[in-house]
Amino acid sequence: AVAIASSAFAQADPLPSWNDGPSKQAIESFVEKVTEEDGADYVAPDDRIAVFDNDGTLWVEHPAYTQFVFAMDRVKELAPEHPEWKEQQPFKAALEGDMKTLASYGKKGLVEIIMATHAGMTPAEFEAIVEKWIATAKHPRFKKPYTELAYQPMLELLDYLRDNGFKTFIVSGGGIEFMRPWTDRVYGVPPDQVVGSSIKTEFQDKDGKPELFRLPEMNFVDDGPGKPVGINQHIGQRPIAAFGNSDGDLQMLEWTTAGDGPRFGLIVHHTDAEREYAYDRDTQFGRLDKGLDLAPKEGWTVVDMKTDWKEIFPPEPKP
Amino acid sequence: AVAIASSAFAQADPLPSWNDGPSKQAIESFVEKVTEEDGADYVAPDDRIAVFDNDGTLWVEHPAYTQFVFAMDRVKELAPEHPEWKEQQPFKAALEGDMKTLASYGKKGLVEIIMATHAGMTPAEFEAIVEKWIATAKHPRFKKPYTELAYQPMLELLDYLRDNGFKTFIVSGGGIEFMRPWTDRVYGVPPDQVVGSSIKTEFQDKDGKPELFRLPEMNFVDDGPGKPVGINQHIGQRPIAAFGNSDGDLQMLEWTTAGDGPRFGLIVHHTDAEREYAYDRDTQFGRLDKGLDLAPKEGWTVVDMKTDWKEIFPPEPKP
Ligand SMILES: [Ca+2]
Ligand SMILES: [Ca+2]
Repeated sequence: AVAIASSAFAQADPLPSWNDGPSKQAIESFVEKVTEEDGADYVAPDDRIAVFDNDGTLWVEHPAYTQFVFAMDRVKELAPEHPEWKEQQPFKAALEGDMKTLASYGKKGLVEIIMATHAGMTPAEFEAIVEKWIATAKHPRFKKPYTELAYQPMLELLDYLRDNGFKTFIVSGGGIEFMRPWTDRVYGVPPDQVVGSSIKTEFQDKDGKPELFRLPEMNFVDDGPGKPVGINQHIGQRPIAAFGNSDGDLQMLEWTTAGDGPRFGLIVHHTDAEREYAYDRDTQFGRLDKGLDLAPKEGWTVVDMKTDWKEIFPPEPKP
Repeated sequence: AVAIASSAFAQADPLPSWNDGPSKQAIESFVEKVTEEDGADYVAPDDRIAVFDNDGTLWVEHPAYTQFVFAMDRVKELAPEHPEWKEQQPFKAALEGDMKTLASYGKKGLVEIIMATHAGMTPAEFEAIVEKWIATAKHPRFKKPYTELAYQPMLELLDYLRDNGFKTFIVSGGGIEFMRPWTDRVYGVPPDQVVGSSIKTEFQDKDGKPELFRLPEMNFVDDGPGKPVGINQHIGQRPIAAFGNSDGDLQMLEWTTAGDGPRFGLIVHHTDAEREYAYDRDTQFGRLDKGLDLAPKEGWTVVDMKTDWKEIFPPEPKP
């Protein structure tokens, strides 16, 4: 094991679910470097901004994105109000669980389903719908609520960074209001530190009751080149550390690590089919292709889930 | 003087620049109410969200919005590169300081000037421009940097709320990237807790150097009905307290105070021509008309600057 110089963290291992190895070493040496007050690479706490992709970086995204499963369930729940969906694509495919046909409608089909299932209510009403679903839905393989399928090593990493004065943000291609109801509880990230894709919201004042309404119209796509834009808009600072798992995180990783001073980029590589899933260049959810080639050139750390992670998921809560 | 029940705050007055009276009382009784753990109106720290308008609420906005003055100075600075502006409105009027003609071009003219002076560079370059200007520009009447013309009672109020577990946000019609360079220093509000109007930003990867560029195109107008929308987008929670000074804050005040549980709305009324300015229904900058009529019906506190505030500006720094 590598001896850790900083006395503050020599006492207890802040990353117990990480096996000793180059990934853990890289993380620890970056954190020690930027927090060492007299060091050449010291970064003031105000500038210690870390951004995390969500799906596949902080929690499971296979066999399908959790929000995708949520949208499918919403279609089924709303179907009685929409008898026309039985014959109308892409809803017909969604109702029949025919993922192949659904996929043939591409992004356009997905957006249509999102608009039909995520709009037409207030943010508070949508939040209640998400809360109810997330409390009851279970992952098809692990038979657990999705919020229990966050990665234990990443939860430790979030804590470790915050304990070292970092402000941690989620920057996800997923819906901002799909995440906000539970990110504080699961990740310790409050709603205002969540950046994501969004649909438009409109202020209305009906019968003297001021309210916001969710419109069936895209507002912002927080993916790929949208991630640096979303970060700039919400956070207003270039992060010094970025964590992702797919090519949708490339621009965020590039922009973060291209800044002056010490920078850190990390990619979670899904290599453990036994304990979780193994996928990279050839998958519908979380494709990692260019990123795998770029990482060594850019000096990004690539986490090998199989060898780097002692545990994948949090321990079972005591009965 | 009113005896303050809470022992924690009986020791020292957290709002020394506020005269005793109904405004100070209303603020203190709200804060005590929501922080009293066994009380009926207790609000958990996570939900203690307070939003503040900036111009005219936290700092001076007369004789003109600070960002408007900045834009005029930028036009003058850029004029040598734009000889055509000498004959082209609204730039001609801006260069000549002819505010009447400039005003005749309305919002459209102002947007044209903003696009010509605020776009075409990276966010970091714009930040440097703002930093340089804000460090040197002086208010025409008070002969001080604008950042020294924040209202001392409001600075105390920001601190008081934060000391009581509130998270404080700025929600301004002004440009988000015009404010972020100095809000932490002046108000203790970090960049990610600033909500404002914005122009579009685009990710570009030129010669392997990933960068963001500010485009001459509006992205979001954080004013009037845009304020609740901006709050929802950035903060993701309905605030329990809102502070404003003009009709541009109406929807923010309405939406905030219409929520369940204890709520607080406050309007700063500019009544002190001697120490600052006196204006409300009839002014170009910070018009307060409907708000004055609505406040008593809605139970919002209206601060009378003349009688409620012992001091307007922070004390002179010791030489
Ligand atoms: Ca991902
Ligand atoms: Ca104002």
